[in-house]
Amino acid sequence: MIKFYFDFSSPYGYLASTQIEALAAKHRVVVDWHPILLGAVFKQTGGAPLTQIPMKGAYSIHDFHRSAAFYGVPFNMPSTFPISGVAAARAALWARQQSMTHCARLTHALFKALYVDSADISQAEVVVAVAQASGFDGAALTHALQLQDLKDALKAEVEEALANQVFGSPFFVIEGESFWGADRLPQIDWWLAKSKKQVM
Amino acid sequence: MIKFYFDFSSPYGYLASTQIEALAAKHRVVVDWHPILLGAVFKQTGGAPLTQIPMKGAYSIHDFHRSAAFYGVPFNMPSTFPISGVAAARAALWARQQSMTHCARLTHALFKALYVDSADISQAEVVVAVAQASGFDGAALTHALQLQDLKDALKAEVEEALANQVFGSPFFVIEGESFWGADRLPQIDWWLAKSKKQVM
Repeated sequence: MIKFYFDFSSPYGYLASTQIEALAAKHRVVVDWHPILLGAVFKQTGGAPLTQIPMKGAYSIHDFHRSAAFYGVPFNMPSTFPISGVAAARAALWARQQSMTHCARLTHALFKALYVDSADISQAEVVVAVAQASGFDGAALTHALQLQDLKDALKAEVEEALANQVFGSPFFVIEGESFWGADRLPQIDWWLAKSKKQVM
Repeated sequence: MIKFYFDFSSPYGYLASTQIEALAAKHRVVVDWHPILLGAVFKQTGGAPLTQIPMKGAYSIHDFHRSAAFYGVPFNMPSTFPISGVAAARAALWARQQSMTHCARLTHALFKALYVDSADISQAEVVVAVAQASGFDGAALTHALQLQDLKDALKAEVEEALANQVFGSPFFVIEGESFWGADRLPQIDWWLAKSKKQVM
């Protein structure tokens, strides 16, 4: 199983989300989707949104576009960035309560809304509209987004991530082995192939 | 031409140094070696040695080893880290005054001394010993390391890097296109292949 942690406010999280299922399928493992918020982590690591750092900022925006072209997926820089991923993360968790497949489907839809269609998914009503367009029950999601239960579920998710030393997005944990960044996908591929060999 | 910027205190710089020549040869371009110091850059970007950041520190040391295994090259974490790369960078520049091939040869020897044999290349006499063991004139290097000219040459090198928005190690610039990190090697491969196609 690949535990896949991501923040909706992370372009590299989006890029990884477009690749991880094919990689998992290749090695016949499943993806366990974990929407998180990096704000709490950044307080501990002194991290900051890449785009706000001198020099790295301009580079990273260029790198988002180039990396998307490298992976062969669409990308448009959102007009507002970074955004709060709270509503989107809660919605993805709500979908996960139905099934992991539902979670993956809504996550793809929300990432596409933000990084392809420049929709402002920091707004709950935009998240609901995206969910509805993907076949989810909009009224049920609107209701769920107001419940303390769902807020607590996201808090628990972020705490679990911090406890597992997850400090970035995307972040992958495979049988206790941690990989940080979309650029670790080739190493994950190598790692899974190696683990399989050791088992046989 | 691939402009390859690296700091001797950067393990990912070492890893990239073991891969870049084969990649360049594959695309029939040359490597232009640029030893730099990141201290001045870190002051501008708020960057810090990875190993000193909470959570990222433990991860990165594990990742150095795993990445070395991924590339199939030896790696041992230096007992003192990070180290000052000043003497090593000056020596590599001195070798470059002879030829780019000399620079590559001494750079490989110094990286190996630090990241395989755990030699403390922050010490000028260790740098000279490594150079001598690689066939360089130790007395000439000892003399050169005391000259203001060589100190100024490294200062100019770092200033040129900063002017080109180089903010990390390894860092690659190919015809004005910037790539940061050893994990961008696959994108460099893709980029060079694409550029060639466009020319033809």
